[in-house]
Amino acid sequence: MPDTQRRQPPLANDQRAQLETLYEEMRPRHLYPLWEVLSALVTHEPQTRAVPAKWAYGDVRGYLMRAGDLISAEQAERRVLILENPGLPGESAITPRLYAGLQLVLPGEVAPCHRHSQSALRFIMEGDGAYTAVDGEKAFMKQFDLILTPNWRWHDHGNPSNNPIIWLDGLDIPTIRALDAQFAERLGQPSHPESEPAGSNRAKFGRGLRPLRAGSVRAEIPREPLFHYPYADWSASLEALAASELPDPHIGHALEFLNPTTGGAVMPTISAHVRLLPAGFETRVRRSTESAVFTVIEGAGDVQIGDETYTLSPRDMVVVPSWAATRWRADTKLVLFTYTDRVVQEKLCLYREHCE
Amino acid sequence: MPDTQRRQPPLANDQRAQLETLYEEMRPRHLYPLWEVLSALVTHEPQTRAVPAKWAYGDVRGYLMRAGDLISAEQAERRVLILENPGLPGESAITPRLYAGLQLVLPGEVAPCHRHSQSALRFIMEGDGAYTAVDGEKAFMKQFDLILTPNWRWHDHGNPSNNPIIWLDGLDIPTIRALDAQFAERLGQPSHPESEPAGSNRAKFGRGLRPLRAGSVRAEIPREPLFHYPYADWSASLEALAASELPDPHIGHALEFLNPTTGGAVMPTISAHVRLLPAGFETRVRRSTESAVFTVIEGAGDVQIGDETYTLSPRDMVVVPSWAATRWRADTKLVLFTYTDRVVQEKLCLYREHCE
Amino acid sequence: MPDTQRRQPPLANDQRAQLETLYEEMRPRHLYPLWEVLSALVTHEPQTRAVPAKWAYGDVRGYLMRAGDLISAEQAERRVLILENPGLPGESAITPRLYAGLQLVLPGEVAPCHRHSQSALRFIMEGDGAYTAVDGEKAFMKQFDLILTPNWRWHDHGNPSNNPIIWLDGLDIPTIRALDAQFAERLGQPSHPESEPAGSNRAKFGRGLRPLRAGSVRAEIPREPLFHYPYADWSASLEALAASELPDPHIGHALEFLNPTTGGAVMPTISAHVRLLPAGFETRVRRSTESAVFTVIEGAGDVQIGDETYTLSPRDMVVVPSWAATRWRADTKLVLFTYTDRVVQEKLCLYREHCE
Amino acid sequence: MPDTQRRQPPLANDQRAQLETLYEEMRPRHLYPLWEVLSALVTHEPQTRAVPAKWAYGDVRGYLMRAGDLISAEQAERRVLILENPGLPGESAITPRLYAGLQLVLPGEVAPCHRHSQSALRFIMEGDGAYTAVDGEKAFMKQFDLILTPNWRWHDHGNPSNNPIIWLDGLDIPTIRALDAQFAERLGQPSHPESEPAGSNRAKFGRGLRPLRAGSVRAEIPREPLFHYPYADWSASLEALAASELPDPHIGHALEFLNPTTGGAVMPTISAHVRLLPAGFETRVRRSTESAVFTVIEGAGDVQIGDETYTLSPRDMVVVPSWAATRWRADTKLVLFTYTDRVVQEKLCLYREHCE
Repeated sequence: MPDTQRRQPPLANDQRAQLETLYEEMRPRHLYPLWEVLSALVTHEPQTRAVPAKWAYGDVRGYLMRAGDLISAEQAERRVLILENPGLPGESAITPRLYAGLQLVLPGEVAPCHRHSQSALRFIMEGDGAYTAVDGEKAFMKQFDLILTPNWRWHDHGNPSNNPIIWLDGLDIPTIRALDAQFAERLGQPSHPESEPAGSNRAKFGRGLRPLRAGSVRAEIPREPLFHYPYADWSASLEALAASELPDPHIGHALEFLNPTTGGAVMPTISAHVRLLPAGFETRVRRSTESAVFTVIEGAGDVQIGDETYTLSPRDMVVVPSWAATRWRADTKLVLFTYTDRVVQEKLCLYREHCE
Repeated sequence: MPDTQRRQPPLANDQRAQLETLYEEMRPRHLYPLWEVLSALVTHEPQTRAVPAKWAYGDVRGYLMRAGDLISAEQAERRVLILENPGLPGESAITPRLYAGLQLVLPGEVAPCHRHSQSALRFIMEGDGAYTAVDGEKAFMKQFDLILTPNWRWHDHGNPSNNPIIWLDGLDIPTIRALDAQFAERLGQPSHPESEPAGSNRAKFGRGLRPLRAGSVRAEIPREPLFHYPYADWSASLEALAASELPDPHIGHALEFLNPTTGGAVMPTISAHVRLLPAGFETRVRRSTESAVFTVIEGAGDVQIGDETYTLSPRDMVVVPSWAATRWRADTKLVLFTYTDRVVQEKLCLYREHCE
Repeated sequence: MPDTQRRQPPLANDQRAQLETLYEEMRPRHLYPLWEVLSALVTHEPQTRAVPAKWAYGDVRGYLMRAGDLISAEQAERRVLILENPGLPGESAITPRLYAGLQLVLPGEVAPCHRHSQSALRFIMEGDGAYTAVDGEKAFMKQFDLILTPNWRWHDHGNPSNNPIIWLDGLDIPTIRALDAQFAERLGQPSHPESEPAGSNRAKFGRGLRPLRAGSVRAEIPREPLFHYPYADWSASLEALAASELPDPHIGHALEFLNPTTGGAVMPTISAHVRLLPAGFETRVRRSTESAVFTVIEGAGDVQIGDETYTLSPRDMVVVPSWAATRWRADTKLVLFTYTDRVVQEKLCLYREHCE
Repeated sequence: MPDTQRRQPPLANDQRAQLETLYEEMRPRHLYPLWEVLSALVTHEPQTRAVPAKWAYGDVRGYLMRAGDLISAEQAERRVLILENPGLPGESAITPRLYAGLQLVLPGEVAPCHRHSQSALRFIMEGDGAYTAVDGEKAFMKQFDLILTPNWRWHDHGNPSNNPIIWLDGLDIPTIRALDAQFAERLGQPSHPESEPAGSNRAKFGRGLRPLRAGSVRAEIPREPLFHYPYADWSASLEALAASELPDPHIGHALEFLNPTTGGAVMPTISAHVRLLPAGFETRVRRSTESAVFTVIEGAGDVQIGDETYTLSPRDMVVVPSWAATRWRADTKLVLFTYTDRVVQEKLCLYREHCE
């Protein structure tokens, strides 16, 4: 099937009329002429419906706290504001593959235990001391920690602290929907019985180690055994990286979060990494087929996405659509967290990037 | 995020009003309350928009031949009728991941050389002697051959024979669109210069062998080096398989087409296989998350997909949506060809099937 | 640990004496001074004990037929003459990783069914109509066929034909011995009950296909499902390859035998391929860390291995040790079969080759 | 090829004589009768030449310090005592695949920079403050740290501290020798120029992260990027593991050291792990095809290997040959470090273990 730079010979008027008659007759049989839509189906370059956008943290937080006053966690089941891409109205999606939401959990609230085929990450924006439990092991949250709740793992949340906690929910909902592979179920009790002491996943898988047992070992280990990546760890590593290399001209200093049992992306459908741009650093323009959600952890600067430029302050959230020409600029040292669908594109042999 | 069996406490009327006010104010900021849509986002089981459907070959062929009279190959660029799923109007898709079309190439017609990131297969329904050339190596078609034109490989077609040729085009267009990873280009000349004698791909990769050269070998070999799977080969294998085992109770005798350099699916986004159901054999009910397009090569019978039952005659085409309960019945020996998105679901750790 | 170009400072005489005293005292404790042996332990380049050698087929055949007169199959269990590398006396090895033997099976003889952790191949040198059965599926031999009996698969042989059959046995015996991983057992009955019709492995796995069943498929398939590579197939492919490319300057035209479910070597410890050198073609000099056994299928020429040059006639057998500089010359079209330990070296990240 | 439980029919005397004559004539042609050696070549179970053995740390240390007085580092190049298996005299090997030595580096000594195809690990037995530099990045040693110098990476050592340092050298020398794949070279200057600050490998790869750069990323990263596994990390993880699970009945609590970019063994030819047996715990009997070197980090107990029993004190070293029935007993909490050839056996599909 071709792209359509080439000009086809024009149709004669009567030919057009006869074709329309044919189309009319075929329509009830669910048959359509490719030649009328070919140019839209096979394009030179990605033609995404998603557009760039930014959400200022302060705005979103204000609405979220108001929702906290208006509706209880029990009523809301999840008190989350969806960040919806302006180009994807009604799809509850921030990109065609990714979902983003900002969740508020007030002191004393809990979210009942369940599991689903969607892969999820939460990146903590505010507050300490709440937890996510994965298959009964709690991970206690500190600001800017990354916590995973992978595909089909039981999880529940709670906030035993005295302060509200707000996190960024990142999921692959649109991907799973596009694949018609949604499954979900409840545990039937509010929380999973404790299976391991808090922190076991990091002790067992977070330091270049893995448990070994006699006989056939591999089976016992979940596909994504490490699910808590604390800010204290990744920020120290990112600073060390920045001290040991020149920044990449297109992305600055960057560290990808790994599944330590494969060396690959943290989850089968979501990649995640952090970046550090030194004060005054400006990247060159880059495009890639992945779509990405960014949030600012520290610093100030701006980002140009296609024709739009957005100023950046801590906790602001930005979405970069596929193939959008993107340039980052750091006024002060700028630290970013991002999650994308890159791993999906790589597994399907579709990932491309273009660095100017 | 939960499924929604559980009943949340009801909202008070004034509460509802205040929420509506909040929603109004948030909308311009592209913020939406998850709790209003949660049940639609995270479901117990796949909720595909696709529906089962059947296209009788005779009908489609009739319209296709009329199109052949009405529009030239040059005008049409590709003379193809799209089989569009009745549940996906306007999407030019037979399932949310797959495209299907029936293409007519009249004697003497050619299709100019191009390449794209969509992976394509063609399954020959009628006629002998046309060819597809992949990177300049021709594969001459016989009825019921499978020919691949993988992602980003140059390909052109021609029909030097005296009879019209009709094939089933199977592509991953909706998948590539959902991933915003469409790229395409023209060669700029009608056909690719001949690179290898016809049949080289089968000689070099189709018999449990691969070329070896001194130094680092792997690089030179394309990702899908084998692209022609003749009917004479696969049907002999399928008959031999049927003679050597009891049929699988859910799918009968089945042989998957392989990429011989990986042992995996024929292409990164499309799986394909053939089936043989002995005369009188009826399968048990099976569901899987993959979506599948079937065509009948030989025999008669019927298939029940969800609540619909379709009688089957040679060359009829049927689509089975994700998770649809499916049961096949063979009146006479029934041979089927099918292509699906299973490989995508497996790579993303989402594939499931349920066998009753 | 270093290599030893560098000169260490010399030892004083009294120092030497005191060291000798220390060595004496340590010896009963199984402690030895590294510095006395370092230069032998860590060398610049491979220092193999194996040497190049050739066995003229006629000679070996003569002895083998005499053995046939002198000892029965039942008495011999296997009537095989081991080709032992002159550099490895008493090791029953043709290279430090590989075994080679020439086996004679007379009309009516059988070899009882057993299995072992050694991987074996047999390359048929003479005679048609004998068989090897693997897990109860017979492969009927024709001259120059390749037949595998992989690690831990039940196998038995028989010669129902009226002519003696002679094949080259290629095994990894020295590798398995070096790894202390030898296991073997008898079936307890002369032959395995027939499991599949002869040729099933080729029908199911030899044509770019693999059987598919509902539910979790992969488990049922043996690790090396394809075990018969007929001469008729590989020679046609090799001729086609030779017609479609320029010969590689170091190895000519070459086709590796594949495991079609992985795209890798035919067995986990043995790689095998065939080569064709056009009449008059002479290769450049090449070295590699693999050790290799070659036999001539067709043609005449010679091979220079290090300082030795051997003339080549049909069915002659030659061994090329690791890192030996090798150059091949074809007087007439020269076709070769070879098996090596390359796959082992690649898996352990040790494989190297040097092409002049 | 069979095992040899079965009795072959006996040979008649004259038959034996004629065979001897045949053997005489064949010998100069390097041809040998398989039937005379078959039972030794293919055995029921591993028949290793290695034997169990123990080296009491105090003894070895005494000899090593004496060597320190007698010979300078410059004279010795490496001041190492080889632990040689009593069953492998003259082979400088502790098992048929592994080498072990105890190295002494006195204050102020350095070892010049070189690289080789042997993979090496060093486990620190005594002393703090020395370093190993890998490709110019220093890892400063503390007691019981594990440090890798993988295949073909430049490395040099130095001891700027005021105390002697002693470490256990674990290498794959016999494996590389058996594969004839030895390569080595010197840098030509005493030490590699500093490439990265000390600890960079841990910051970049030791915490579930990996550096990411624009364009094709993977290439830049060495095959084993993490080379320093500090005692402080692994011991904390091992204690946490012991607190969170019941000990495995055959190996107790165990953590394997990983290559975080693959999830596999630390090096392509060597696996390593640590174990903790609670006070009073006794394992069941286990055999495996791997051969293993153990050293005691903490505690007291004993180990029964085949018919031998050895009492265990801190820093004692024990070798367990392939397939030896082994049972461990802890009087006090017993912590062990071990390295083995398991990864080689697994890659070659030869690994087996038997748990009673």
